[in-house]
Amino acid sequence: MPDQSVPQARTSAEAAEAPDSTGGHGVSRRELLGTAGATGLVLGAAGGAVGYAAAPAPATPATPLTSVGSGRAMFHGKHQPGITEGLQARGHLVAFDLAAGAGRKEAAALLRRWSTTAERLMAGEAAPHDDTDVARDAGPSSLTITFGFGHGFFDRTGLEKQRPSALDPLPDFSSDHLDKARSDGDLWVQIGANDALVAFHALRAIQKDAGGAARLRWQMNGFNRTPGATAHPMTARNLMGQLDGTRNPKPTDSDFDRRIFVPASGEPAWMANGSYAVVRRIRMLLDDWEKLSVATQEQVIGRRKANGAPLSGGDETTPMDLEKSDSKGNYVVPLNAHARITRPDTNGGAALLRRPFSYHDGFEADGTPDAGLLFVCWQADPLRGFVPVQRKLDRGDALSQFIRHEASALFAVPGGAAKGEYVGQRLLEG
Amino acid sequence: MPDQSVPQARTSAEAAEAPDSTGGHGVSRRELLGTAGATGLVLGAAGGAVGYAAAPAPATPATPLTSVGSGRAMFHGKHQPGITEGLQARGHLVAFDLAAGAGRKEAAALLRRWSTTAERLMAGEAAPHDDTDVARDAGPSSLTITFGFGHGFFDRTGLEKQRPSALDPLPDFSSDHLDKARSDGDLWVQIGANDALVAFHALRAIQKDAGGAARLRWQMNGFNRTPGATAHPMTARNLMGQLDGTRNPKPTDSDFDRRIFVPASGEPAWMANGSYAVVRRIRMLLDDWEKLSVATQEQVIGRRKANGAPLSGGDETTPMDLEKSDSKGNYVVPLNAHARITRPDTNGGAALLRRPFSYHDGFEADGTPDAGLLFVCWQADPLRGFVPVQRKLDRGDALSQFIRHEASALFAVPGGAAKGEYVGQRLLEG
Repeated sequence: MPDQSVPQARTSAEAAEAPDSTGGHGVSRRELLGTAGATGLVLGAAGGAVGYAAAPAPATPATPLTSVGSGRAMFHGKHQPGITEGLQARGHLVAFDLAAGAGRKEAAALLRRWSTTAERLMAGEAAPHDDTDVARDAGPSSLTITFGFGHGFFDRTGLEKQRPSALDPLPDFSSDHLDKARSDGDLWVQIGANDALVAFHALRAIQKDAGGAARLRWQMNGFNRTPGATAHPMTARNLMGQLDGTRNPKPTDSDFDRRIFVPASGEPAWMANGSYAVVRRIRMLLDDWEKLSVATQEQVIGRRKANGAPLSGGDETTPMDLEKSDSKGNYVVPLNAHARITRPDTNGGAALLRRPFSYHDGFEADGTPDAGLLFVCWQADPLRGFVPVQRKLDRGDALSQFIRHEASALFAVPGGAAKGEYVGQRLLEG
Repeated sequence: MPDQSVPQARTSAEAAEAPDSTGGHGVSRRELLGTAGATGLVLGAAGGAVGYAAAPAPATPATPLTSVGSGRAMFHGKHQPGITEGLQARGHLVAFDLAAGAGRKEAAALLRRWSTTAERLMAGEAAPHDDTDVARDAGPSSLTITFGFGHGFFDRTGLEKQRPSALDPLPDFSSDHLDKARSDGDLWVQIGANDALVAFHALRAIQKDAGGAARLRWQMNGFNRTPGATAHPMTARNLMGQLDGTRNPKPTDSDFDRRIFVPASGEPAWMANGSYAVVRRIRMLLDDWEKLSVATQEQVIGRRKANGAPLSGGDETTPMDLEKSDSKGNYVVPLNAHARITRPDTNGGAALLRRPFSYHDGFEADGTPDAGLLFVCWQADPLRGFVPVQRKLDRGDALSQFIRHEASALFAVPGGAAKGEYVGQRLLEG
């Protein structure tokens, strides 16, 4: 029996399937966002609320409320996205090596493809071709896609002279237990989003864009809190239960840009407004850690576990009193406490922006969790950021016996692409 | 220099650390919820909104808005939680085997510990002892913890006579490629939450409760959309980009309870109001699947990819017209289309409630994703639910060449615990 509603419905469905400027989505996911998407706010980064994070009240009842899906970060800009945005609920880190025979020309074409894809996906649109539909219906969900170059990239593309000295291999640390197969890489892509399917969709699109030009070297999955799950959106907890990132520099700090980004006039020129990412897979030895009392854990860290306050008193934002001692004359914040060692003002002003994901890849045969931190930190110069801090930690951090660095990489992350430009163009066509 | 604010702040911090009835949290996470937690709503299950999911408007400006964190499922009830609740953003499936020497007594003590932990964590409170603080600050985030018994449990506890025939091993299917190490198990725990740290926190607490009584057999991590990321909260997409669960029975269906739950008067008596969970790790061969055109994918599934409408027309909710043919006399919905084969009314009324998680555990060395579906389905009787449907799929499902069943398990999930009771008590003390 003919159903008169069918032709109409099919027409509508066919329209949604037809190849068009929205990459086959018909109605772009971006259009669906309406005004909520125009705020550009990444949910979860607002912070400051006491008690449970409340959604912002609508200006008028007709204004759509923001939601996880409508959070949107911008692809174009002075800096690449994925550096200063709030932590995202899901992350993928992936490294590629250029394929045999692929050189500068293929790398340039790849970065162009990747940039096109990143721009579209971050706007909530479909991939430029062969979209998998995994993100269909969803908003951009604060998706960010960030690209970096590793040490080996420059040899393979004949661009050795453009390689920054800041990309020289990190020094060995005595506590390293590095798996080379999961370290380094010619190219690096960091994907973050507040929805796991949006993130996976982006990962597959990036992988397919690689085509014959680059082969996957390693890939890791991570996570953070879901926006709205906690009253402390600015300081996340890690899998040790610690507030993690209390002392992170803030974009409002007067010296933030100088510490985190290469200056516009910096060297090499193609790294203007770029940053260096140190990536470490840090296994947490949770079975050992969790055997400690909370009081002992606090001695290891130097901060109270409940609220992140320094052991010298106050709340999370109170400066640590390094000189304070107890009635027996012992420092209240032990000399080997993690938070004492990592304080910027004991490290010659070194500052790095931590922007990690937690990871959990199941359990070893003996029940030990394969879990910890995908530590990603950002700095204008690793020799003034990660390296001096890690050197100090390597010598005397009380936390070191509860963690194990299992993989390591360092990438040069160029500045953001201008409209019509692709990421790395100033290097590859410079 | 003394800081007058310090003593006060420390007192407050110490109070929050002191062991007390809230398990060391001082202020329980439940208290923090305020009125928002009292709704009992699991966010993401509301559905029906057009465009982006909007948070409900507050009744008065003083009423806290609901948020991801405040979603709360109930531990006590007729049925266990984690069966009819909306899909959660993060899931852990974990199976244990009873340890050598552990019998009925140890199993009873373990289920008592697990039930206490589940009740507390689902209320947003700390674990009964040695809480890791990983979920501190967060709300319950719609956490559910669900317990089941596998075939082997009954031999090891001398309860063979109580083993339901419904737990007889599933038949072999020709398309099975099962890894025994990741199949079966004496005990099963399903954990789901809308926050990944809340879920991990629960997983660790459950693992620790196992103590010497049970050892971990296998564990898998999964995910679904984050609440608010999509306009289609009722029907999720899977990693093939398909709407997944369109034909799921709904709790409002008149025969829902009969199909999904063992009746209160059912056999064995300890399974009253329980259900059977079939768990399959289904690898999706995404590299092959994504090579197909959308039109071909739709022939495989029998539904339109964009909106889930049957190929016979209409929208997602329109009944499929199995007889409809095109101008050449071919069925519009192919005979081997997945959605045709799995339709309940072609399976003698078999019905199962799909409640899956997607999974992605990285890539094989050749770049193939280790990704797919942690398929979990619920039914009053597997021989009238999963088994007949899978038999039909095994014979002629067009989808079968794009998936691979890599692990399988079947568990008897008893009814919910009454207040003061633990899950499985009617079996273990019956």
